[in-house]
Amino acid sequence: MPIALLTDFGLKDAYVGTLKAVILDINPNVAVIDIAHDIPPFDRIHAGLLLYQAFRYFPLETIFVTVVDPGVGSARKPILIETEDYRFVGPDNGVFTMVLQEQKVKRAIHLTNQEYFLKPVSATFHGRDIFSPVAAHLAGGIPPEKFGTEISDYMKLPEFIPISKQGRIVGRVLSIDRFGNAITNLTRNLLQHHFPKLDFKTTVGARHAVPLRFFDHYAAIPSRHPALIFNSAGLLEIAANQASAAELLQVKSGDEVQLAIHPRLGYAPPQ
Amino acid sequence: MPIALLTDFGLKDAYVGTLKAVILDINPNVAVIDIAHDIPPFDRIHAGLLLYQAFRYFPLETIFVTVVDPGVGSARKPILIETEDYRFVGPDNGVFTMVLQEQKVKRAIHLTNQEYFLKPVSATFHGRDIFSPVAAHLAGGIPPEKFGTEISDYMKLPEFIPISKQGRIVGRVLSIDRFGNAITNLTRNLLQHHFPKLDFKTTVGARHAVPLRFFDHYAAIPSRHPALIFNSAGLLEIAANQASAAELLQVKSGDEVQLAIHPRLGYAPPQ
Amino acid sequence: MPIALLTDFGLKDAYVGTLKAVILDINPNVAVIDIAHDIPPFDRIHAGLLLYQAFRYFPLETIFVTVVDPGVGSARKPILIETEDYRFVGPDNGVFTMVLQEQKVKRAIHLTNQEYFLKPVSATFHGRDIFSPVAAHLAGGIPPEKFGTEISDYMKLPEFIPISKQGRIVGRVLSIDRFGNAITNLTRNLLQHHFPKLDFKTTVGARHAVPLRFFDHYAAIPSRHPALIFNSAGLLEIAANQASAAELLQVKSGDEVQLAIHPRLGYAPPQ
Repeated sequence: MPIALLTDFGLKDAYVGTLKAVILDINPNVAVIDIAHDIPPFDRIHAGLLLYQAFRYFPLETIFVTVVDPGVGSARKPILIETEDYRFVGPDNGVFTMVLQEQKVKRAIHLTNQEYFLKPVSATFHGRDIFSPVAAHLAGGIPPEKFGTEISDYMKLPEFIPISKQGRIVGRVLSIDRFGNAITNLTRNLLQHHFPKLDFKTTVGARHAVPLRFFDHYAAIPSRHPALIFNSAGLLEIAANQASAAELLQVKSGDEVQLAIHPRLGYAPPQ
Repeated sequence: MPIALLTDFGLKDAYVGTLKAVILDINPNVAVIDIAHDIPPFDRIHAGLLLYQAFRYFPLETIFVTVVDPGVGSARKPILIETEDYRFVGPDNGVFTMVLQEQKVKRAIHLTNQEYFLKPVSATFHGRDIFSPVAAHLAGGIPPEKFGTEISDYMKLPEFIPISKQGRIVGRVLSIDRFGNAITNLTRNLLQHHFPKLDFKTTVGARHAVPLRFFDHYAAIPSRHPALIFNSAGLLEIAANQASAAELLQVKSGDEVQLAIHPRLGYAPPQ
Repeated sequence: MPIALLTDFGLKDAYVGTLKAVILDINPNVAVIDIAHDIPPFDRIHAGLLLYQAFRYFPLETIFVTVVDPGVGSARKPILIETEDYRFVGPDNGVFTMVLQEQKVKRAIHLTNQEYFLKPVSATFHGRDIFSPVAAHLAGGIPPEKFGTEISDYMKLPEFIPISKQGRIVGRVLSIDRFGNAITNLTRNLLQHHFPKLDFKTTVGARHAVPLRFFDHYAAIPSRHPALIFNSAGLLEIAANQASAAELLQVKSGDEVQLAIHPRLGYAPPQ
């Protein structure tokens, strides 16, 4: 059962290497995999999306350590969430919202047992002093309940959850990936439920409705035309062919995406 | 036999971590090494150069997964090339051209056996659904011929191959590295064959011939003077001492490099 | 005993992957951990600070390969320093200065035994040809004295060492981290020795004394106010709350930091 790391620590400082040092010192046999670290600082939405796109490809029982933590040292709780398939460790800041919509939660633990922390616990680097050692001990076989007290609630971030009202679906751009694709929180399942023929027009941010067509893969999109795609995680993505859809359409992370029925459209996605 | 990864997926998204998750889920014991991921998007030339500079230092039988794939989902073929020493997996886009000039090919396989793919295969992420699982199964001992049908040809990229005509050698800048060194496709062997005394003048891009001198190592180059070096992969490099030769000379990736004999030059490289 | 890598090779070229290939080819069982590679090119101060912040969290006997090496190929010595707890390998350029103030040196070796190098040794990539293979053999059990001749001295960088004069302490900003925190070479121990009440005013660069207050953690700092913090490595840091202190105060790497007693201050750090 490997440990997967996802942080906003970047790659020009020693923070990520220090997490791995702590894990390896406690548990020399665990495999540690990086999901990403070079994400926008403090961006829980970006981190939660990456986790959602990646988690289901990891071996069962993988421990995901997710640290995007501007509140480090304050009252926000360090938590461990155990689901049927995986374990998630990090500050309680809503970053797990999207993943937990698809995972059945078995229990949530407030990490209070200092026995499994590095000591002294600094006020500024809980990734090193709390989350990494807890993950390493968890991977070593310590059962979840030993790490603290069970809690009944944890934070959810509404940004991850689309709204459906009056025949419209209102979602959000969660992230622009390195290729300029604008990835939304709108799943294929949700859209096919509301628009069986996928005959909707799309409004992004404050712009007028854009008649974006669906395509199956990037190379099929006409050059310099933004288009729609269901990406490899099943999420609606505004994409372009070897160009940045985000630049072509002036879309940015956080923008609202509205879908409303449009009788003249109706492009079935090729697959 | 480890798996080495080389992609243009960058480090701010979850794509690279997902490749590793898939590999680890199929084959928990394989070592996975990153060559690079933060390369210019869609730049097969850059990727092919990195592979050339690195491959010979990997253990024999290493499997190189190289995914720079704007054509994902289109008709371009997924392939596996087995050479005497190594195995190369990725889309058939010419990225292996430079490496295969120095490796004897045993066979090339068109990856058609879906038994070794993740299913369903998405139209946009074959790195996850085809190349990683094939590499993991290959590392686990499945023989190459099981993955598909043998093919007799695969794509070559002419950009990697220098031309010699009328006493001149015409090459190309393949990449500017992070230190600003402009790395070409001109090998020491080729240049010493054509210019035994290395007495050539150099024309880069549209600029006039530049009388660049050869040096043995960076610290020997006079400050702010671009110069020539045979780099650690035996390639001709336009370099500077703690400065960017690419900026000093306004050289960029893709620029043509012409070498012609120049009787008044003749700087023997120190080594 | 793992090998930790710290270089300025960046992540867009194949240099780091090549180091790992060489290590794995010699010693397939060693764990290799990245501290950082995407640091400013040629910046030994940044590298030395990262090593200082991270090293004590690694397992005992870890081998740290630290290559920031503009002098590669010149007369600068390749060295191995063995301390009571760890081993450090790299060019002799002072990068170990700060770490060695807290580690008792057992011996320093000038790496001269070519038996443990890759051959031929290139003039431009000693990370690949000298430092990685030496580290891999060292991890495999070859004793330090086999790698060369003992030396009595090695380079120290004065930039790492604060000066105390006439009731003032003069330090230096060693690095700006990705969050914009300006990290200094001033340790909590040093400051508490000179200013038991921490009642000092701070002058950064050419600016007037700034009455910066101490806080325990980032989230406690008032918005857009630069402040002081002892960071997770026990170093004085000029920090802000979800903002870049370096931008707010126009501080940059290398700036002098002067501390002088100020009777009206005296903020005890919360912890």
